[in-house]
Amino acid sequence: MAKFTYEGDIMDKYNTFKDSLGEVRVASDKYWGATTQRSLENFKISDEMMPNEIISALASIKKCSAKANHYFDLLSDEKLKAIELVSDEIISSSLDEHFPLKIWQTGSGTHTNMNVNEVISNVALDKYGVKLHPNDDVNKSQSSNDTFPSALKIAIYKLANDKLLAKLKELEKNFAKKEDEFKYIVKSGRTHLMDATPISLGQEFSAYKYMLINNRKMIEQNLRFLLELPLGSTAVGTGINTPGNYQERVISILKNESGYDFKASENNFHGLTSMDFFVNLSGSLKSLALNLIKISNDLRLLSSPSASRCMDFIRLYPTSG
Amino acid sequence: MAKFTYEGDIMDKYNTFKDSLGEVRVASDKYWGATTQRSLENFKISDEMMPNEIISALASIKKCSAKANHYFDLLSDEKLKAIELVSDEIISSSLDEHFPLKIWQTGSGTHTNMNVNEVISNVALDKYGVKLHPNDDVNKSQSSNDTFPSALKIAIYKLANDKLLAKLKELEKNFAKKEDEFKYIVKSGRTHLMDATPISLGQEFSAYKYMLINNRKMIEQNLRFLLELPLGSTAVGTGINTPGNYQERVISILKNESGYDFKASENNFHGLTSMDFFVNLSGSLKSLALNLIKISNDLRLLSSPSASRCMDFIRLYPTSG
Amino acid sequence: MAKFTYEGDIMDKYNTFKDSLGEVRVASDKYWGATTQRSLENFKISDEMMPNEIISALASIKKCSAKANHYFDLLSDEKLKAIELVSDEIISSSLDEHFPLKIWQTGSGTHTNMNVNEVISNVALDKYGVKLHPNDDVNKSQSSNDTFPSALKIAIYKLANDKLLAKLKELEKNFAKKEDEFKYIVKSGRTHLMDATPISLGQEFSAYKYMLINNRKMIEQNLRFLLELPLGSTAVGTGINTPGNYQERVISILKNESGYDFKASENNFHGLTSMDFFVNLSGSLKSLALNLIKISNDLRLLSSPSASRCMDFIRLYPTSG
Amino acid sequence: MAKFTYEGDIMDKYNTFKDSLGEVRVASDKYWGATTQRSLENFKISDEMMPNEIISALASIKKCSAKANHYFDLLSDEKLKAIELVSDEIISSSLDEHFPLKIWQTGSGTHTNMNVNEVISNVALDKYGVKLHPNDDVNKSQSSNDTFPSALKIAIYKLANDKLLAKLKELEKNFAKKEDEFKYIVKSGRTHLMDATPISLGQEFSAYKYMLINNRKMIEQNLRFLLELPLGSTAVGTGINTPGNYQERVISILKNESGYDFKASENNFHGLTSMDFFVNLSGSLKSLALNLIKISNDLRLLSSPSASRCMDFIRLYPTSG
Repeated sequence: MAKFTYEGDIMDKYNTFKDSLGEVRVASDKYWGATTQRSLENFKISDEMMPNEIISALASIKKCSAKANHYFDLLSDEKLKAIELVSDEIISSSLDEHFPLKIWQTGSGTHTNMNVNEVISNVALDKYGVKLHPNDDVNKSQSSNDTFPSALKIAIYKLANDKLLAKLKELEKNFAKKEDEFKYIVKSGRTHLMDATPISLGQEFSAYKYMLINNRKMIEQNLRFLLELPLGSTAVGTGINTPGNYQERVISILKNESGYDFKASENNFHGLTSMDFFVNLSGSLKSLALNLIKISNDLRLLSSPSASRCMDFIRLYPTSG
Repeated sequence: MAKFTYEGDIMDKYNTFKDSLGEVRVASDKYWGATTQRSLENFKISDEMMPNEIISALASIKKCSAKANHYFDLLSDEKLKAIELVSDEIISSSLDEHFPLKIWQTGSGTHTNMNVNEVISNVALDKYGVKLHPNDDVNKSQSSNDTFPSALKIAIYKLANDKLLAKLKELEKNFAKKEDEFKYIVKSGRTHLMDATPISLGQEFSAYKYMLINNRKMIEQNLRFLLELPLGSTAVGTGINTPGNYQERVISILKNESGYDFKASENNFHGLTSMDFFVNLSGSLKSLALNLIKISNDLRLLSSPSASRCMDFIRLYPTSG
Repeated sequence: MAKFTYEGDIMDKYNTFKDSLGEVRVASDKYWGATTQRSLENFKISDEMMPNEIISALASIKKCSAKANHYFDLLSDEKLKAIELVSDEIISSSLDEHFPLKIWQTGSGTHTNMNVNEVISNVALDKYGVKLHPNDDVNKSQSSNDTFPSALKIAIYKLANDKLLAKLKELEKNFAKKEDEFKYIVKSGRTHLMDATPISLGQEFSAYKYMLINNRKMIEQNLRFLLELPLGSTAVGTGINTPGNYQERVISILKNESGYDFKASENNFHGLTSMDFFVNLSGSLKSLALNLIKISNDLRLLSSPSASRCMDFIRLYPTSG
Repeated sequence: MAKFTYEGDIMDKYNTFKDSLGEVRVASDKYWGATTQRSLENFKISDEMMPNEIISALASIKKCSAKANHYFDLLSDEKLKAIELVSDEIISSSLDEHFPLKIWQTGSGTHTNMNVNEVISNVALDKYGVKLHPNDDVNKSQSSNDTFPSALKIAIYKLANDKLLAKLKELEKNFAKKEDEFKYIVKSGRTHLMDATPISLGQEFSAYKYMLINNRKMIEQNLRFLLELPLGSTAVGTGINTPGNYQERVISILKNESGYDFKASENNFHGLTSMDFFVNLSGSLKSLALNLIKISNDLRLLSSPSASRCMDFIRLYPTSG
């Protein structure tokens, strides 16, 4: 397999790379390079893989960045074409085996960003005969400091919007059906695991339906913060090493490609360093989890026959009011 | 001190109450009654008091409920007047010593709801000579199941809106001043505790400012869910034991009294049972906490002299890309 | 592939099972049965597999239980032999692909317990021509209620003892070497990220070494609680459906097979229902994590060049005392 | 009120102190000094007071340190006597109002350590006419870095041993009585909220009893780590500014005074910096909490009448095995 080697010899089973940190050998049937291999060797912990959705989001970023760099005359037609082709392959999941890294690596996702750069560069050479430098071409106008938080936002937004919210709507519909079906079944409302005043089973299911509606609203509004991307602001937020208007251009391309309403961070220095978006969103997800647990526990209790033999011996007295 | 006693004798130092659960003695200089006293004796745990803000919110509810009940001819002019007067005293904090309960009590806040009912009833008798039944008058058209979650929402909304958001705006302004003051101080941007490309100190403070702006937006939008109140839906959400349109009326009174845009829960069965509002809001508060910790740690590091003597011996190698 | 079918037809690609819950089809190249297949279809959530270590611990339990049942004349020589052979295959990991279940299933691990029963029964028939009933033979004198918590304890004890503690000892040795190597390097001790009184770098590394020694002691003593097994106490702790002294016998066999000092729970009703052992142990593991994070952060700070340009502008005043 | 002033004038309502950080005014009826006052003004957050148990443990440390310093001829008879007298007053809780600080202060507890030093010094002057310097006399041979973690250990050990474990033993006895009382009440054992095989109610209560026995064992063994004190190792663990054998001496005095088996940390550098003891202990406390919640939930379910009206409509199917 042909590979971009900073300074390498092609051997039988391994390619050997040399760089400032020394030599490293990569299995010759894999498309990753030296940085990926070092991460693999240094972080032999856990089996929690970097999720495909993040790899895929990074590949979208590589493709859109290449288009923007090409627009600013920083990338040739041939190189653009190669990056587009390989990025699409990554997005289509056909190169999954070449992304072996775990989530436990550098804090800023540098290793996975380089993994994508290296695979694009090596596949381009091997399949299309195009020589791409992983850093100078594929990572041009980028830093893992801006691509990785952007990829997290893209991946989470897409997953939440396309999968989670879609599923929630489906479940809402099912609860709505039950609400209707159980409309005239009158039962005892319960407080403190004791009987209280009457309620219909349909009314209880209307609460379940409304829990999901409410959670959906919460998630939708908190997701909106994820549409702001620091992409193009590079290592520390100043946009150093990018051509003028690069950020505007690359995000506009990404918006068109994805169909999502992405825009530039209002403050890139914030966009690079703060994870406040995710923590805020996690509150909505916990809120959903809480409601689903409540629903499940209610159903378990409603279908549980009483352990009534004990009621004569164990009696917790309710308090009035 | 004159007190409403279900069936009680006034003694020297204690009033003795009798009810279905037996006898209970309350110090005669305290305005609470039997339910409160029992909670005090049964839950001798912790020193975490029920916050004044919740007591105060419950007093507002008692006052507005009395007005609504009066409107529906369920309460006399004299009783309404007495409830209003004592509720206002509670809100003004002059009766704080008569609310001795801890947060550790029944899950639904029944004891604190009754504490408010009992104090209103006993103060009304003692100071104004008006005889009020804690349950039949003060708690009319209510259940702790609807008043307590409503009081939580009112108290938290008020605290967050009047105090937290106000303080955040102030801090934003201070960071904006620093952003301007430090505009031309160029320093090294830092990644992984190492020097990276240049940045101005003002740009770093703009990130801090924007963190707070962002957190404020998150809190504001997540607070809005707290404006929906299940007040008036009583024990299980059906509004049993309330006159027609009671919920609409009582919430409209509360809205006018408070100046906040309260409205009826879209689904009262949900409004009574789910705490999803609070969990969702807590995500925004955690997000704020995260940013404040980040800011504090940055400032600590920026003002810390290096432990440079060790750098020759301990060297963690950064990774490129 | 020959399989034990409650009432099944062998087809081309699927085996069809019929039982009280209806029909279910299992791929004919897989050794699992109806219960496993239903779990697979009903719990299509997450990609968190039931860990191999738990499957392996359950296989040990099956083997030791077969020996105990054989001792009490409840299992023939031939059946014992078959269960031993297949259990050993499971333990050696050669049947891993036949355990497809996730950790998200019934709370008591019933599905995984049945998965092991089904695979043993089907492999026995297919490879050795021995007909074993998954429940009446393989699960004899057992219930998932006693086998599953026992398997958790066996698996966690083994992992912690053989892997974690061994690794900790190794790291202790490395820190001891550094303690010696850095003995005469004097540096400034640090408090609040500021210089304090002198210390040697070796003394700092002695603290790291002692953190691990201390954590190892904590883990070792808290692990001891995991040696108590409720194995043999079946569904609710009474040992119903087991022959006299069964628990004593099966645990004594397991102790000999494993080399670990397992013994019967002092109170089986507790052993079945409480997870207190694990929560207690998790405190020791968190304590270790805390120390490792502390060590890592120290090393990051010690190797970090100061952001000294800012010290003139940002100055947090230390407090004395 | 007479007070030790670094350089102060006694005024009507306030004493004014001057030191390197400027002027500060303290109410003249309070015994605290400048450091305490500054903490009070700078950390106006929360109403979570530094617990009395920690103040009291610090006072024990002051007293024992004074004895040790006196032994090494570093403190006069008169000063020792004064420190002993005021420390005992603090321990007896008669000076509680002079400890106004919150738990939110410097990370190392410096402010509270100084609060104790200042109160001892000011009371000594005011009541006994003995002039003590808060730092040079009361804090001699100490640093908040060694006294505060030692005080935490002393306070927690005492609370856990004298109160928590004592209460647990009492509850164990009560469950043992119930175990006996309910010995012949046969009921259905329950799994998954469904009936299973028979069990006696006494057997269920034996499990509750054993939960507590088990938790007590866990807490006892994890508490033992708290007996190791870094007291005497001062600012960074080297024992700088203490006379030879000071640590041995002061801990031996503390052991005799308290009756607890305190000893010197095996590694003082560890003892100063790691909180592993507390995290490890918290695992045992969580384990106890888990069991108490389990017991409470069981009792709630056992005393709950079934919501049986719904069982015809909502049926969750159990799985076999």
